[in-house]
Amino acid sequence: MAPRWKGKDTKAKKDSEDEAHKEPMSKIIYLLQSSLVQSDAAGFLSGNSVRVAVEAEQTDLFVKACFGQPVSTVEKDKQWFQLGLEEAFYLCNSLKCLKINGSNNSPQDDQELWHFMRSKKKAFSCFYKGYSHLRLKNWVVRPGAQYGVDFVVYRHHPALVHSEYGVLVLSGGDDNDCNGRLREWSDFHCTTRLLGSVAKSLLVLYISKNGVGDDSPSCLAKYTVEERTITRWSPQQCREG
Amino acid sequence: MAPRWKGKDTKAKKDSEDEAHKEPMSKIIYLLQSSLVQSDAAGFLSGNSVRVAVEAEQTDLFVKACFGQPVSTVEKDKQWFQLGLEEAFYLCNSLKCLKINGSNNSPQDDQELWHFMRSKKKAFSCFYKGYSHLRLKNWVVRPGAQYGVDFVVYRHHPALVHSEYGVLVLSGGDDNDCNGRLREWSDFHCTTRLLGSVAKSLLVLYISKNGVGDDSPSCLAKYTVEERTITRWSPQQCREG
Repeated sequence: MAPRWKGKDTKAKKDSEDEAHKEPMSKIIYLLQSSLVQSDAAGFLSGNSVRVAVEAEQTDLFVKACFGQPVSTVEKDKQWFQLGLEEAFYLCNSLKCLKINGSNNSPQDDQELWHFMRSKKKAFSCFYKGYSHLRLKNWVVRPGAQYGVDFVVYRHHPALVHSEYGVLVLSGGDDNDCNGRLREWSDFHCTTRLLGSVAKSLLVLYISKNGVGDDSPSCLAKYTVEERTITRWSPQQCREG
Repeated sequence: MAPRWKGKDTKAKKDSEDEAHKEPMSKIIYLLQSSLVQSDAAGFLSGNSVRVAVEAEQTDLFVKACFGQPVSTVEKDKQWFQLGLEEAFYLCNSLKCLKINGSNNSPQDDQELWHFMRSKKKAFSCFYKGYSHLRLKNWVVRPGAQYGVDFVVYRHHPALVHSEYGVLVLSGGDDNDCNGRLREWSDFHCTTRLLGSVAKSLLVLYISKNGVGDDSPSCLAKYTVEERTITRWSPQQCREG
């Protein structure tokens, strides 16, 4: 499927595409990373998410890079963002541009943070491997709950382009405890039909743990990811190409 | 949700409703049952289905009662119908109006037929309990594959009314091996959103085996069925009724 740029007419769509090409996601992420490193940014654990307060310039970068949700507050000089578990850990562990404080108000090390994430989400290791796999390839990754999937991915900012894939993260190979989806044909039918109706394909990421546990974030480097797209087959449409 | 009668305009919809009330499904099923008993009808096992050849009058009743699919053949005086496993077993075991021959060309008794069904479909006992539960209440029950569910149910013939529910049959209580659906929130989101987009609700039938096995069809009487409908919750729509 080709990317579907947003816009009322052909010209507006072309403008969206040009804007995306002018400022690729890799560059936006790099700017966000540099800015957060420079300001020694720190967030804190809050329930099932991480909250971080940022300056005006960083607000723009957070929005452009599609990390978290802005939170309304009465503070004028600061903007708060609420990050999901995968998003926070990605900024912290993969981009190394965010510190996260625990309840004792001191920065958590990777190991402490890893245990926190796993205590909040049983299959965090698999979901995070899937999330980081796509973010590292500069896809914009957002929650997929409204489409009944784990994530949806965009080629660039959701303001410029429709998402192309709904993503389910499954744990293949040596165990199957990551996600109870796609065990029945009816689930395949349901998921591909729903995604098809909103012009998306189903992307399944099979995470193989290769016999490695998930006690520490160092296991992530040993996990492998197998990608498969799944689409509906229609005898009429598929005949003679 | 109110039934959605089919028709181009209000009058046509009213005609559909009147037609359904004039000839209720209970009456159609009774006529089919009587006719099949009278003609001593017999079908035979064929792969994952049962085939039965019927006279002209019975063809009409099969179509009206929504059992099976008519099969095109060159025979002029007979119409063949292909019945699904649940449909065939319902006519045979519950309505007692159809005999089914095995490979030796002699009628299978209930026990033989039960074993055949279970060899073709692992969780046949649960699916059949769900199917017969709805048919006994005079719902028209059809396969639900295109909506990613086990069945769809209609208040009357699909020519007169849209289906109101997509049905998933789950095995609750003492075991959970019937169907691997609805184990994750994302699956709930996916199913309710898809069904919502085609104006149906999700009906979940939880079958409790109550500690009884599924070695013979006599177990069915001891199974209990718990019905739940599940719909999406929207804060905007649900506030202030």
